[in-house]
Amino acid sequence: MTNENDIKILMQSIGKKAKRASEILALAPTKQKDDALKAAAAEIRKAKNDIIAANKKDMDIAVGRGLAGAMLDRLMLDETRIESIARSIEDIIDLKDPIGDILSEKIRPNGLKISQVRVPLGVIGIIFESRPNVTADAGTLCLKSGNASILRCGSESAHSSRMIHACLVKGLKKAGLPEEAIQLIPTQDRAAVGELLKLSEYVDIIVPRGGKSLIERVQNESRVPVMAHLDGICHVYIDADADLEKAVSISVNAKMRRTGICGSAETLLIDKKAIDSHLTPILSALHEKGCEIRGDKDVVKAFNESREATEEDWGTEYLDAIISVRVVDGVQGAIDHIAKYGSNHTDSIITENSKAAEKFLNEVDSAIVMHNASTQYADGGEFGMGAEIGISTGKMHARGPVGLEQLTSYKYQVRGNGQIRP
Amino acid sequence: MTNENDIKILMQSIGKKAKRASEILALAPTKQKDDALKAAAAEIRKAKNDIIAANKKDMDIAVGRGLAGAMLDRLMLDETRIESIARSIEDIIDLKDPIGDILSEKIRPNGLKISQVRVPLGVIGIIFESRPNVTADAGTLCLKSGNASILRCGSESAHSSRMIHACLVKGLKKAGLPEEAIQLIPTQDRAAVGELLKLSEYVDIIVPRGGKSLIERVQNESRVPVMAHLDGICHVYIDADADLEKAVSISVNAKMRRTGICGSAETLLIDKKAIDSHLTPILSALHEKGCEIRGDKDVVKAFNESREATEEDWGTEYLDAIISVRVVDGVQGAIDHIAKYGSNHTDSIITENSKAAEKFLNEVDSAIVMHNASTQYADGGEFGMGAEIGISTGKMHARGPVGLEQLTSYKYQVRGNGQIRP
Repeated sequence: MTNENDIKILMQSIGKKAKRASEILALAPTKQKDDALKAAAAEIRKAKNDIIAANKKDMDIAVGRGLAGAMLDRLMLDETRIESIARSIEDIIDLKDPIGDILSEKIRPNGLKISQVRVPLGVIGIIFESRPNVTADAGTLCLKSGNASILRCGSESAHSSRMIHACLVKGLKKAGLPEEAIQLIPTQDRAAVGELLKLSEYVDIIVPRGGKSLIERVQNESRVPVMAHLDGICHVYIDADADLEKAVSISVNAKMRRTGICGSAETLLIDKKAIDSHLTPILSALHEKGCEIRGDKDVVKAFNESREATEEDWGTEYLDAIISVRVVDGVQGAIDHIAKYGSNHTDSIITENSKAAEKFLNEVDSAIVMHNASTQYADGGEFGMGAEIGISTGKMHARGPVGLEQLTSYKYQVRGNGQIRP
Repeated sequence: MTNENDIKILMQSIGKKAKRASEILALAPTKQKDDALKAAAAEIRKAKNDIIAANKKDMDIAVGRGLAGAMLDRLMLDETRIESIARSIEDIIDLKDPIGDILSEKIRPNGLKISQVRVPLGVIGIIFESRPNVTADAGTLCLKSGNASILRCGSESAHSSRMIHACLVKGLKKAGLPEEAIQLIPTQDRAAVGELLKLSEYVDIIVPRGGKSLIERVQNESRVPVMAHLDGICHVYIDADADLEKAVSISVNAKMRRTGICGSAETLLIDKKAIDSHLTPILSALHEKGCEIRGDKDVVKAFNESREATEEDWGTEYLDAIISVRVVDGVQGAIDHIAKYGSNHTDSIITENSKAAEKFLNEVDSAIVMHNASTQYADGGEFGMGAEIGISTGKMHARGPVGLEQLTSYKYQVRGNGQIRP
């Protein structure tokens, strides 16, 4: 499977099958979809030894390639993690099926009843890296929302992903649903991604999950609409009226709880009127937790354990125990900085001043804006969506966490009794 | 302004200004936007002689180019039509401002209050042909929904559109809003459209309105998301259980009320069990109104005044007094035909059988599906949206008529009191 034409034919065939499966899935009752999820979870438990063996192959290759510890940890599957994959699938059973929801309904003066009804998007392409559990998470979220999916895993997790995918397919079959409802691209050839991005006839949306270079490639090449976020440059702004205790604990949590997720804070902005009162306690707490501080001139002057930030720092997503710190002139200064350097992901203001808070919440143009809360809450599960397939920073279609509802569209059903337009 | 580099610079500058204006518009109170609309309507009434004089130039050029009567009629402005433009602007004042609407709100177990709040999309690019009134309709709909707009008119309406645009700008200024909130591209050079489609840094969405070749060019070239419909191949399906009177009046209305709009019917499908009872009355009524009938073999056999349709007919949007007619095997046959040849726009079933109706409404994958109503109701005004900027057949973002609400996105505002994520 290295011939480019073969891959084109393969991807066309995958696209066509997905489209056909999506037509059946769109009409599948909730119970049938839930039956498939239940059966898939059982199959994953049953196949745990096979999954671990497949994962061992992936791990051996990864070790041979000299992959770093954090990457190896993302890849690794053991009994506990496999059980957690099975449980995640069962959690989706408990989520409300959004399909068929009536979003609005009205009767027009001429008697026409117009209902806006939720329907699936159709076919969703998901391109992801390293974590093999995404195979199950993404495929089953799409299934529950009535969408067919085409999954493309990273080459490092290929053996594990294929084994997990086989369990999902068994679940589909047991429930009498088409096995093409969740397809995993069987080749790791890079050209397959290129072909997937051209399948606008069959694929309704592409969701890339992974590093910046993957997202950039997808956003630049795709002829299919893309839902994604490129960067998560999240800010915490410490207002002059911030409660000191909240300011310290939120800053530390937003940066250090987990540094590798998109909702972790990368830049701390601090009101110039709060330098004397707030700067040292916050930066000391961060420093004690092992966080490197890169500050502007005022910050470096006020806090010894910091080095000077460069212009580049303000636009960098470290995904590491590093934070850039800048003094700004009040809430307007914070808003201006975020407009210039932010990535429209998640930004939080810490203040007891409700006027400043409302200004920040209204004027910062990000998918998620927060008041007195940690940016690490930027997560579909924390938003009560149950699960998410990713976070979108675009304004088209879905913004913020992409859960079941965000994987849907709607149609208008118009019921009349013979109306003709005058 | 023929140098390609000049046009690139011009379009970059227009994009940047629009983006800045959109930041102000996003926060503008409803009253200020309504004041601008009110002032714009007044300016248009005041400038009616200038607009008519500008339109005369466009008309003279069009006549010189040998434009057809229907095109000339679309282009022509007189006092009545100018008054109707002004009134359309005033109608938008009466529409509810969607910005700031709370789409959902919940308090999480940890006390975080999560509100999903409607915000504008940002900057909307609208590319349209012939009708100069679109300048006012599109610019003011965007304004009311808090979006900045970049308008590109057809060259045939350039003088009229510029004059109307000048009135809108005066309205913006009077209300203290940035005049760059509604910009009209000052050159008719084709390269300007190409540059607009590349402005993904500044433009959030492109709405093309016009012929198929324009839509195709935009969909193929654009790096900005596009909301549009390529075709309006609308079907009326006459079920065996159709009421004959409704079947006749809806078929005639759906096809002949106005043949040139996207919601007009292009294909009539008829249940084979209804041939004897329904076919002749419906086709006679259409024929009497001057409609050409192109049928399949069974239709041609049953109805003299018809000629045989070719395969091409089933996928053709005539936008004229022509209809293709095919016999199908019940509601499933109709659904299959529409899946193969339809354009996901608007399709209607005529029947007194509610089971058949519900099957059609659920299984036909179109933006608008109807029961016992004319497809010509596919219109934002008829849906109670007040006005529309177009109809979308895509599933991303908005589907069906695109009115004020469809020109918006949302953000999440999260209010806490010090929550950190465990």
